[in-house]
Order: sequence, then structure tokens, then C-alpha cells
Amino acid sequence: MSSFDWSSVYAGRAQRMGASEIRELLKLLEQPDIISFAGGIPDPDLFPIEAFQHAYGAALGTDLSAKQALQYSVSDGSPELRSWIADYMGRLGVPCAPKHILITNGSQQGLEFLGRLFLSPGDPALVAWPTYLGALQAFNAYEPTYVRLDPRGNAPAPALPDSGGRAKFAYIVPDFANPTGETLTLAERRAVLARAEAAGAAVIEDAAYSELRYEGEPLPSLLALDAAAKGGIDNSRVIFCGTFSKTLSPGLRVGWVCASATLIEKLVLVKQASDLHSATLNQMAIARVAVAVFDDQVKKVRAAYRARRDAMLDALGRHMPKGFRWSRPEGGMFVWVEGPPGLDGRALLERAVKRERVAFVPGQAFFADGSGSETMRLSFSLAEPDEIEEGVARLARAIAG
Amino acid sequence: MSSFDWSSVYAGRAQRMGASEIRELLKLLEQPDIISFAGGIPDPDLFPIEAFQHAYGAALGTDLSAKQALQYSVSDGSPELRSWIADYMGRLGVPCAPKHILITNGSQQGLEFLGRLFLSPGDPALVAWPTYLGALQAFNAYEPTYVRLDPRGNAPAPALPDSGGRAKFAYIVPDFANPTGETLTLAERRAVLARAEAAGAAVIEDAAYSELRYEGEPLPSLLALDAAAKGGIDNSRVIFCGTFSKTLSPGLRVGWVCASATLIEKLVLVKQASDLHSATLNQMAIARVAVAVFDDQVKKVRAAYRARRDAMLDALGRHMPKGFRWSRPEGGMFVWVEGPPGLDGRALLERAVKRERVAFVPGQAFFADGSGSETMRLSFSLAEPDEIEEGVARLARAIAG
Repeated sequence: MSSFDWSSVYAGRAQRMGASEIRELLKLLEQPDIISFAGGIPDPDLFPIEAFQHAYGAALGTDLSAKQALQYSVSDGSPELRSWIADYMGRLGVPCAPKHILITNGSQQGLEFLGRLFLSPGDPALVAWPTYLGALQAFNAYEPTYVRLDPRGNAPAPALPDSGGRAKFAYIVPDFANPTGETLTLAERRAVLARAEAAGAAVIEDAAYSELRYEGEPLPSLLALDAAAKGGIDNSRVIFCGTFSKTLSPGLRVGWVCASATLIEKLVLVKQASDLHSATLNQMAIARVAVAVFDDQVKKVRAAYRARRDAMLDALGRHMPKGFRWSRPEGGMFVWVEGPPGLDGRALLERAVKRERVAFVPGQAFFADGSGSETMRLSFSLAEPDEIEEGVARLARAIAG
Repeated sequence: MSSFDWSSVYAGRAQRMGASEIRELLKLLEQPDIISFAGGIPDPDLFPIEAFQHAYGAALGTDLSAKQALQYSVSDGSPELRSWIADYMGRLGVPCAPKHILITNGSQQGLEFLGRLFLSPGDPALVAWPTYLGALQAFNAYEPTYVRLDPRGNAPAPALPDSGGRAKFAYIVPDFANPTGETLTLAERRAVLARAEAAGAAVIEDAAYSELRYEGEPLPSLLALDAAAKGGIDNSRVIFCGTFSKTLSPGLRVGWVCASATLIEKLVLVKQASDLHSATLNQMAIARVAVAVFDDQVKKVRAAYRARRDAMLDALGRHMPKGFRWSRPEGGMFVWVEGPPGLDGRALLERAVKRERVAFVPGQAFFADGSGSETMRLSFSLAEPDEIEEGVARLARAIAG
């Protein structure tokens, strides 16, 4: 008997719902003898397991608390957690209150909500070339026209396409960006805000990696700068997407959006329609763990990842052939490598995995226009320094042929 | 200084993102002296707390397991949980495999994904009048034209609007529907499937309440009927949205979609773009609790809610004035009351809360066309039988004036 033709009932936007090359790739890399620089995945050896054991034990430990933890809860999120996050944002230079915070399932869900709220088909969305693939995936369903934004100011100012309307937002990862590892200077941050203001666009600030700084002084977030300039968060055009994924745990899927109360009120409706609320118990546990260990945990992961970044930069300096350049990130999880013109990153990956048992992500996936075939993203978060040295040596052998 | 004008960057669809009257209402009903028939909320006294304590203890109890529980995981969901659900669906008469299952954040997220995947602006979507408000909210962002589907066959067959294209799906709650409490007969199920087939539409089956049957024999799900008729789930047009919210815990936000592998593959991409995956730890815990206590737990909640349904039907029979009719649900959480023409459910609610301290949900919110002002939804899930008796007596007094 014939099966139902699903494509006959799909919306037009379904054509732009594609698989993430990276996540497909990760499935292939589970063999233990491969040294993987592929996934941007926190090292589970660094998780604050004991703190989570206590937190879940406490949340489920009394009948009263367990009944709350397992029950429906409000769409905007746990008051305790929103209150902790509001204080935390205050420490980042963003004076705000719980009404400026929405709890989401990781920052990914915040990005998807913002795509849904802002983008009509054909609307211009300003993104960097390259940029976080997951953001492109989140926005793609809403059929934007991507316009190149060069937040470092090296590329010409974007011309908006004739077909589209007004640019709805600029999406920016200001600190240790995925995939490039680059950080915007203070002047570049101000320039991005000025350009967004001139274009009448909102700014989506993806702060996923911001806590992972290994050297230098923290720079103010785009939201901190804009809120200060405009007289408060409620006047700002910046939407800050934060997450506990890179500090406490990615698997619990707890992140947040911090923005003007007007926008948060609208996003609460989006959250309600999407999945009612984030898991009550996980919010309770994250709040407890954040109170108990956040600062110490950040110190711990910074120290571990700093050593790995140093090992990777050392190894690249020693092993990579002429014609290759790479970023020197002040934080985050990634080094971005640009090979000589003509390099085919996908072909290199295949050779690297088969012959040398080392993996990375070909950079092309991060370009909204499909360019960048000569680039690669190397993550240093998951391997110990000696593995990193060995992995980079293998990569250099794969490049050599 | 002036604030950013968010409405200037909203997509057209944002106009249809409205607040749920019910959830707004629930915020007002937290005073302890109110007897509430408002929320469709499981009784937390029935949660299997001990089983969850064991499950979270075990999932976080060893380093190996804790590292897995707190780490990123695959977008389609935990293999153990999907395997349990596939077996469960088999017991419901739907032979299937884990590849036919996607884990979602409650069934609500499944509904939102399906709206996103299927609906272009103006597309007809067939829904009952009245129907689950959360489904309307999930679909609204994708700007459908709602067309009345009367699954009981009392209303005339829907005429599709000239402006719209082809109906993309029919959304049906076959068992103990929210808000009416009604259950489709076997003949009505077959008729719904035949009508969907004639219209070339998919069928979204919302099974949120299906386990909560208090009398009579379970009827086959729409998916079971269609898969049997078409030679297997991969040929079926039915998409089954299930949840653990009404049986194990709503706060953990774990549900599933069960459908043709072709559709599930597409939905996995939607899940990935939306929030990467559902919380790893919660999936592990739900899988353990389901293995350990699912059948006993279902027996327990059925017994408790059956007694409350009986108490509510008894009390309605004794207290309600002439001119009121109500459903006699075989399961679920709701009795649907239709008052005489001209009754204003919202005004009655205000009077009932202020004067008599009893609450319900005015039925109008459940009608896609805003009709139904003379209706109310009474939930019996959260009050003990003696409170139900008292609450219905109060409601009758409020009606009397």
C-alpha cells in the first residue's frame, strides 16, 4: 500500500529545515581511537556533579519540594532562578530585574523564538560570515534573506537586498565566537550598535561563551553598553541570550533571554505556545547549583580550557605548514584555521579521519552563503593537552597528504 | 530617552501570539480559600515521588552516569526511553520501533513543531469547536485559517475557505477531550480518518488524556486504526502526540511524537533547530520511572480521578439548575457544562470567584471563532470529592445570582 506523501502537506518553510552537518558528523566520530576537535562540547570531567547530586537530592528530598519540582510551573520561569540571573546580569553591568528574564531551553531556544517573532519570509537578517550554525538553523525556518555583517568592520557595509524589507536584527557573538574564536573590541561593539541603530534593527547578542575568558579583561556586553547609553534595559534594542550549557551543564537545557520587559512579555507568550515552560525540577536544581558553585565552577573550567587552548596554539605553531593561518582566541572553545586558497576542508576531513584518526569541522557549514571551503574549526574543549599535541600533529600529516 | 519600538521589527505572525486566558486566570486563583475547577492540572499528591527520587539518585549516582545525564545528547531522544515508548505504542496496537519516536518537551512541543512544519499563512487547519486552547496557541503563530471539524458528525462537513489552499491537517483529541471530556466512538474514529483521507490531510492525534479511562473498554487510537488499514505506521497519515504529563509528571516536560519514520526524520531537524534536544537527565529518569511503576501509577491515578469525576457528576445532578447540560466523560479531567442561551461565562466566573470563592474556565477561550460564551469547563482533577461537592454547590449559588 502506498504511504502518505508528507511533502504534500509541508509548509514552504520546510524546504529550509536541513540537517546540521556537525551533528551528523558527530555521530560518526564515536570511535575511541579518534582524536576529535569536532564538537563544541564541554568536558564532562568538569561538570559539578556533586553539586548537582545535592541539588536534585534537595529538590526531590521533601514531599513539599518534590511536588513542586514535578508539577507544571509558570512560563517565564522559576522566580528563584530568574532572580539569580538578574543579579548575575547586574554583575555584568546590566541592572535589571526578574521581569527582564525569560528561562529557555538553552540559548538555542531563545534564538529560535527570536527568529519566529521577528522574521517574515524574505526579511533581511544580518549575520557574520562565518557564524554559529545553530543560529542559522534556528532562523532558517522563518525564511530570512541573510545579509553579511562584518562586525570587525573589514567587509563593506551590507547592502540590503531589493527584494527584502527592513533588516529585523543583527545576530552577533561578541565573545570568543563560534566558530572563529574572535572577540569584538570595545570600539567594534560600539560600531555594531551604531549600525543596528542606523538600520532600525534589533540586536541579538549570543553570549554562550562569554564566561570562558582565559586572558585579558572582560569587555562589556552589547546589552550593557546599549542599556547604559539609552538609560536602562527597557530602552535597549539588544537581546542577550545566555546559557548554563558551557559553565554548569549542557544536558539540562537551561538558558535565558535578558531584554526589555516589553520584549520579554511577548517572548513569554512564545514560550507558552511552544512547550509551556522549561522543566521545573531542572530550573530548581540549576538555581541551587548556581548559588552554591557558579563562581568556583567558572574558575575551574577556565583553568582547564586555558591549558588546552595554549596546547593547541603551541601545537599549531609547531606543526602547521606554511599557508595556514589561525585565530588566537582569548577564550571559548574554538580555534579557526584558514588554509590556502583551494583547500577543500571536507576532503581533508575525510582523509584526516580515515588515515590519521583526527577530526574537525569543515568551516563551510558556518557560512550562510556556502563559501569558506578552505576553513576549519578546531575545538580544544574535549581533549587533554597531550592529546591536542598528538591530534594537531596528525592533522598536519593529513594536510601534507 | 525613547525605548526601542519592538513592534517595528515583529513579523506579521506576532499579531497572533496572544496570552492564554487560562494561564492568566490561574495566576489569580492561588488564594487558598478558592475551590478551583479551573486548571487541568494533575494532583501532585499522586506523583510517584519515591520512584523519581530513586531514578534521579541512580542517574546522578555514579560518575559515569552523571556525566552522561548532564551532557548534550541526540536530538531524537534517549534510546532507552524511545525503546520503552515504542514497546508501549505496541501495546496500544501500534507496532513500531524507536525510529518512529521523537522525544519532545511534553505534547505541547509536538503540536508547535507540527504547526511550524505544515502551516503556511492562510492554510486551512481542521479543528473541533471547542478544542484544546494550547493547540490553537501552538498553531496560531503559523497563521492558519481554522475550519470547523465536527468529529462527532453533528455539524455539516466543513467548506474550505476560498482564500486558503488545501487543508494541511485535522487536529483531534479522540479520548476525553479537553475541554469537552468527550470520546469518539469507533465509528466516529473511522469517519474522521476517511474525511482526512478524502481531504488529503494529515491527522494530528492528541492523546494527552488517553490513559485516564475510568470506565468502558479502551478504543483503538487513530494511529492504530490507520496503521492497521494502511499496512503499517510508515504508511499512515496519523501523527500521535503523547505525554507523561498526566501519568508521571507534567513538570519534567517529557512527551513524544509517534509517526511514520519519514515524518520523524523531518521533526528531528525541527527539534535540533528549536532546542537541540530535551533534557538528558529527565529522559533518563522518566525511562527508569516508566519501567518501574508506569502500570501501577496509571491504576493509581485512574482510581483517584474516577472518584472525583463521580463526585462531580453527582454534585452537578443535585445542584445545577434547569437549563444546564453537561458531558459525562468516561475519563480525563474535565466536565463540559453548557448553560442556557445568553449565559455569560466570563461574568459568571467573576461573580463565582468574588462571591462564592469557586473558579472554572469560561468555555469561550476554546472556540477558534470566539463563540461559546454560554459554556464552562470544570476540572475535577485537583479537588477531593468533598471539596467537589462543596464547589459545585457554590457554583450553583453563583448561577442563581
